[in-house]
Formats: sequence, structure tokens, C-alpha cells
Amino acid sequence: MEASPASKPKMVDISRKPTIYREATAYGRIKLRKSTIEAIKKGLVEKGDPLFVAAIAGIQAAKMTPQLLPMCHPIEITNVDVKCFIEDDNHIGCRAKVRAMARTGVEMEALTAVSVALLNIWDMVKKVEKDEHGLYPETAIEKIIVEEKVKAELE
Amino acid sequence: MEASPASKPKMVDISRKPTIYREATAYGRIKLRKSTIEAIKKGLVEKGDPLFVAAIAGIQAAKMTPQLLPMCHPIEITNVDVKCFIEDDNHIGCRAKVRAMARTGVEMEALTAVSVALLNIWDMVKKVEKDEHGLYPETAIEKIIVEEKVKAELE
Amino acid sequence: MEASPASKPKMVDISRKPTIYREATAYGRIKLRKSTIEAIKKGLVEKGDPLFVAAIAGIQAAKMTPQLLPMCHPIEITNVDVKCFIEDDNHIGCRAKVRAMARTGVEMEALTAVSVALLNIWDMVKKVEKDEHGLYPETAIEKIIVEEKVKAELE
Amino acid sequence: MEASPASKPKMVDISRKPTIYREATAYGRIKLRKSTIEAIKKGLVEKGDPLFVAAIAGIQAAKMTPQLLPMCHPIEITNVDVKCFIEDDNHIGCRAKVRAMARTGVEMEALTAVSVALLNIWDMVKKVEKDEHGLYPETAIEKIIVEEKVKAELE
Amino acid sequence: MEASPASKPKMVDISRKPTIYREATAYGRIKLRKSTIEAIKKGLVEKGDPLFVAAIAGIQAAKMTPQLLPMCHPIEITNVDVKCFIEDDNHIGCRAKVRAMARTGVEMEALTAVSVALLNIWDMVKKVEKDEHGLYPETAIEKIIVEEKVKAELE
Amino acid sequence: MEASPASKPKMVDISRKPTIYREATAYGRIKLRKSTIEAIKKGLVEKGDPLFVAAIAGIQAAKMTPQLLPMCHPIEITNVDVKCFIEDDNHIGCRAKVRAMARTGVEMEALTAVSVALLNIWDMVKKVEKDEHGLYPETAIEKIIVEEKVKAELE
Repeated sequence: MEASPASKPKMVDISRKPTIYREATAYGRIKLRKSTIEAIKKGLVEKGDPLFVAAIAGIQAAKMTPQLLPMCHPIEITNVDVKCFIEDDNHIGCRAKVRAMARTGVEMEALTAVSVALLNIWDMVKKVEKDEHGLYPETAIEKIIVEEKVKAELE
Repeated sequence: MEASPASKPKMVDISRKPTIYREATAYGRIKLRKSTIEAIKKGLVEKGDPLFVAAIAGIQAAKMTPQLLPMCHPIEITNVDVKCFIEDDNHIGCRAKVRAMARTGVEMEALTAVSVALLNIWDMVKKVEKDEHGLYPETAIEKIIVEEKVKAELE
Repeated sequence: MEASPASKPKMVDISRKPTIYREATAYGRIKLRKSTIEAIKKGLVEKGDPLFVAAIAGIQAAKMTPQLLPMCHPIEITNVDVKCFIEDDNHIGCRAKVRAMARTGVEMEALTAVSVALLNIWDMVKKVEKDEHGLYPETAIEKIIVEEKVKAELE
Repeated sequence: MEASPASKPKMVDISRKPTIYREATAYGRIKLRKSTIEAIKKGLVEKGDPLFVAAIAGIQAAKMTPQLLPMCHPIEITNVDVKCFIEDDNHIGCRAKVRAMARTGVEMEALTAVSVALLNIWDMVKKVEKDEHGLYPETAIEKIIVEEKVKAELE
Repeated sequence: MEASPASKPKMVDISRKPTIYREATAYGRIKLRKSTIEAIKKGLVEKGDPLFVAAIAGIQAAKMTPQLLPMCHPIEITNVDVKCFIEDDNHIGCRAKVRAMARTGVEMEALTAVSVALLNIWDMVKKVEKDEHGLYPETAIEKIIVEEKVKAELE
Repeated sequence: MEASPASKPKMVDISRKPTIYREATAYGRIKLRKSTIEAIKKGLVEKGDPLFVAAIAGIQAAKMTPQLLPMCHPIEITNVDVKCFIEDDNHIGCRAKVRAMARTGVEMEALTAVSVALLNIWDMVKKVEKDEHGLYPETAIEKIIVEEKVKAELE
């Protein structure tokens, strides 16, 4: 008497899929106070440069995807490129590109990199985003999407 | 000649802060196709029940926060509660409450739980959200916020 | 004056072994109270469905094998299938199949998946298995074995 | 429309439980060939002393319990003691005692230490336990139980 | 027949030790080519600012100490401060201070932070330190020591 | 307005590099009191055989390199060989060789294995190296270098 077929967690079997070049690009952004964006621009954030910390944490997170997503396969990632940037007066954007020679796509790795990079932006500017109750009335991770995917036979 | 004070990464020193009861609630949601929501409702998602897998992965992620966010402190979390639910025809919502007796707030833990839970929803329904190019024109993690925080002296 | 050759820990060198298809199936079971098995059947376990949680945790554990077993090699697992099921009035069984294109067998990965899945069954039903002293007079993980292994050249 | 209350994974909230001294002892054993036990006794196992490697891996595993068991809380373990020993001509036994000042019991930590220690015994002697098909007709982890638990107010 | 008492790995039992304020400072340095130090000064290292990456990686490593050192206890670190700096024409220095309210000292955490920070400096400048054979005739981590320890009852 | 190109953290893209046999050997040593070396020789260290524990921890650390060094790629290591040995009256030496079929060199993995093995030697003999202030006036990790690298097309 197993859990019913529909609900039982099931990892896709990729044993017979070919190892080819895979690339995926994800994007996301976080809404911050205008004054926070100013502080980032001027290098005045006390905990350090949020864009730099977020980029490193995003790279690390891409490599942790199989631990964070139970149904994801371990993959020998060959590159993670994470760019965090000031988009406008109220937004920090983040774009992550993941590359691998793999049997399955790497969009979850790119999405994980973006999500964790944005969480790190939040963490770095907590102090200046908080209101008097310790809440974040203006802060929000607003949008995380997949922008592009590439599949190719190299050489 | 160190990196300049403004940019140097710096963890907050919480050694002298008192250990009190902390609670934080975060919320987020993911936009999916109506047909995908239908499939979830009917228990027809091939990889298993996305709401169940996401809840477990969210709980696990809360405990991994100090590995994902370099400036976060390790905390003895006393409870993580992750609820994933169908919000409307196009959205799965997720709410995570984290509790701890700690020297610092747990909002980053709650935000991490929500973010990773939503990434898992995406991963579980990839097959039915993809278009013919393997892209996700309709899928988006739309909004991640902190809803509530509690600080209290217990007993 | 090194530790003597016999006792020095030594990882097997698999550099020259061919990458071929590997599969291993392990099985194990846990003895529980009849009343606990009934509670599982009826979906009455307070902490959630033990079979579902155990299956996910087993999949995660297979991927963590090289961290848990010092002499094990990191492997790009291509599939983990974990089935937890009610065997009889007093037993939950668990069967895990691990697949990989690898230079070494994957039986340790399958055994790890089964072991951790069974530990999770225990954890989920602790409350109803405990006696008045907080002990587990009837609970036991009884048997963990390798059932089958496959080695094949694909394509 | 959440997953039904009965099946939703749920971590126990220990926020209000007192921090007291906790101790738990678990035991387990693995059945091996008589010739393998002889080889261990004589220090002839090629990969190194299985009892030593298993003890270290068991200690490490106890500390990884919250990552392996989704519903387990992170705990500041104050001691892990793992003893692996030759029980008789066909068995290696393992006993693990875990201690902590914690809000919840540590039996899962002790059981995890024993389980992973026994998996390591298996891994270390794979070569001499395998038959000509690469299978393990005689090898089995036979029994894993909780032997004792202590709860006390220190000083 | 256990492994003999002298060799059996044994974690110190800190259950009865008081939780007090602990601080430890470690220092280390890496020898690099003068031209590499110049490149770091001018912000010309292709992989990014080595001092910044090393500082973050050192903080992360301090938190991973119990996974890297089997006999170390998990500790709720309250602060990690890692400073990487140009010492002279041939050396990058690194100083890490770790703070915790804990039952045991934190010098291993500080030493781990310094060691991993220095490994990251090496990794960031590999390209300009390598000779034509891909070797590092001039690169060396030269010295890692504990500089200071503090034990105090706070408040 | 991204972080400037010079400082932005950047992982090398190895997607187009061929998978070939890689080997790297690193060496390091730790200075200890003569009396500590004597205690190690005689098997009198209370926490267990430091050389054995260090070797295992070094092997484990090599596999954790991509988590410890943000810009490192995950690699399917095929062998780690860690030897810890008494060099002279005041030094324990450590040599680690790492092998892999990979798109990039494995010197960082070998250096990480050596660094973490030496940290473990320190941790195992803390008690007998400490002075009356809990400091380590004589203990130092003195030198960590790359000794050799091999690149070859196998078969």
C-alpha cells in the first residue's frame, strides 16, 4: 500500500539522455527604498557592497541546487555568471546564466542563483529597509523568470 | 591596504544581544498556467504532489539559511511551518513562519523558506509549464514579502 | 612514520575505470506498532504522511552519500527512486533504486537512501511509538540489504 | 486548497520547551562474513580500519541530522560518542551516545550516527563481502534500536 | 574488540561546561608574486577582487567548522570578522576574529576562516601565479597562527 | 550600474575545455611541540590518532572544495590520497594527491585537503599544545604549497 502514484515524489530518470551543452538565463528583481538604492550607489551600506556579496552567494547557490530542490539531479556546472545591478530608483536587478555539459536543463540552477542573490540583497540592506516595527513595508522580491535557454552539441 | 570600509563584507555582532523569542512570517506566490493549477488540484502532476514537496524543501531551506546568506548567523530554529496552497486559477501561494529563541530576527529564514518552496513548485511542474522551446512564457515567481514579525520574552 | 598501511584510510582510485551505466537496488524495513501502521494507513500521523516525507528524504540522502561516507566518490546520479510501503501489520518497507553513468557502483547510494528513509519513518511516528519513559521498546530498523545490481554499456 | 491537515508535513514547535540535558544511546549491528571479521581483526582491510572510519563518520552524521531528517531541529550537540566493535564471528556492533543541552530529545541523532557508522563499515569491506556478481548475499544491517534516554536538569 | 583507547576518535564532552563569551583571533598569510600584489592593488584581477571574495568565503568557512573538523562541536557563532589586506610587496595577510556564546573555545573556527580565506586568495590569482608548467613556484601559504583568545562572563 | 568589471566575482567558463585526466599534489606542515610529537608517536593523544582523523577529514574536504571556494567548479573526483606523517621532532607533514577526469585542474582540491588535514591535526592536539592562557605560542601551520601537477589523455 504505497502512497498513490499521483502524489509519490518522483525524480525524472535522465540515464539515457545525451550529455550536451546546456545554458539557462534567469532574471529577477527586488524593490527597495529609493534611499537604499542611493546608499548602495554611494557605497554606504554598512554590511558591505550588496551587489558583490549577492553575486558570490548566487554562484554558491547554483552549486547547491540539488540540495535545495529534492527532485533535481547533481550536475557538473561549468560556469555560473551572476550580475546584480541597479535597475532604476527603486530596483536592484539580478541576472544569472548557468552553463553545463549535462543530461538535463539548468534553468532551476539559474533560478536558484537569482533567488538566493536577491535574498542576499535583502539581507545586506535590512537595516535601512526596516520601519520602526522591524517590518519591511516597501521591500519585495517582485519577479523571477527564465529568460533564455540554449541546448547545443559542442564541437 | 584593505578593501575600503564601505565595501568590506561585515557580519553584525550579536554577542551582546539577548536571547528572546523571535517569529517571522513571509509570503510569496508563483504564477502558473490554469491547466497546471488544475493538474495540481486533481493530483495529476507526474513528479508528485508539488505542495507537499515544496513544504518539505522550504523547511529544509530555512535550516540552510546561514549557508545561503553569508552574513546570516547560525540559529537554533525551534519551528518552521510552511504552507503551500492554491490561491486562485493562476497562483500557488506559500506562507512560511519561522520561530526561534535567538539573538537576531528570523525574517531571512522565513524568506528563504518561501523562496525555496516556490522554486520547488516550479521544478515539480516544469513539464507542463514549458512551451515548445523549453521556455516558461507564463511562469513567474511574482512576489515575496515579510508579513509579520514577533519579538517576545517568553515565561 | 606514517600510520601503518593496513589502517590508513584509502579511497579507491577509479580514474581508469570506464563510465558505464550503473544501477543498484537496496531494501530495508522498520518494525512499528500495529497501531502506528493503522495510523499511517488512515492518514492520522500528526507530523504528516511518513511515507512521503521518507521518500523525499531518501532521495536527498542518496545525493549526500559522498559527504556521509568518506571513502565514496562524488557521482552524477541520474535517478533515485524511493518507494516506502506498508508491508504487513508491523512493518514499513522501503526500496531504493539508484541509477548513474559512473566509474563505480551505486550500492552505497541505494543503501544510504534506504537507511535515511527508514530513519525518517521513525522520526515521523516517534510520538506514537514511544512508551511512557520516552523509549521505543518495539521500534527497530530490522534489515537493510542490497537486492540487485546492474552494469551495462548504454547505446 | 491546501494539502489535507493529516498529510501536510509538520515540524513540532519546541519554542516553549525548556533547555535541559538530553542524552540518547542507540545501537545497531551489521552481519559480515567470518573471513571479513577476521580481516578486520588482523588489520588487513585494504581501505583502512573500518571501525575507525565508521566512528568518525558516525560522529559527523550525528551533526548532520537536521539536514537528513526534514522534521528535525538544529541542536547544539555537546558530545557524540561512537563505538564500533567486533561482536562475534559474524557481526560488527555499533553504539552511539549523543548528548546535548536542548529543547528536544536526541534519539534521532544517535540513530543517525549508528546508521551511518554501519553504512561505512559496509563501504569499507565491500571488496571482501561481494560475490562474483558484485552482490552481497551475506551482508545485512540487521538491527538498529534506541537503548536508553536520559533527561536531566543539570546543576 | 574495539580499536584501542588511544586511537579511537573521541569528541570532548562539553555538556557541563558553562556558556560564556568566547573570542578567538587567528592570522595567516600567503606569499604571492610582486606583480600579483600589484594587480590586486590596481583592481586588475580578472576573477574579481580577491580580498573581498576571500573575506566572504572565510566567514562562510567559520560556520562550516563542525563539518570540516570531525571532533568540533556545532556552535552558535555570533560574529565572524575577516580582514584580508596587502601586507607588503609579496604577501596578503588575513586576520579572522570569531565570537560566540559557547561552551568551548572558537580558535578552530578562527583558524578555519583564515585557512579558507587564504585558499580563496590563491584560487582568485591562480592565473597570474602559475608558471608555464601550470605550477606555482612562488606561491605558498606561509604561516597560520592563533593570536589571541578571550573568555568572559558577559553582563 | 553594475559593480565594475575588475571587482565583480567571475567564475571561469570551462564549458569548452576537454575532459582529461588531472592530478595535483599539495604539501603542508604544522609545527608542534616536541612533546606532542612524542605523544602522537606513542599513541597517547586522548582524542584519538591525529594522523588518521586528519587523513579522513582531508579526503572529505577535497570533496567540499566547491562549497569552500566560491569560484571553483564541482568536479567528479576519482581519488583523494591524503598522507599525514611525522616529519621530524617538531613537525607533522601532510601530502594530498587528488585525481579526476575533469575540465579544470585539481590543485585547489589538493590544497584544500592539506589545509583541512592540518587544521584537524591542530584540533586533535589542542590540549597538549595550549599554554596556561589557552594560547598556542608554538603551534603554526607553516607552509602549504603545490608540489606537482599532471595533465594527460588517458587511453
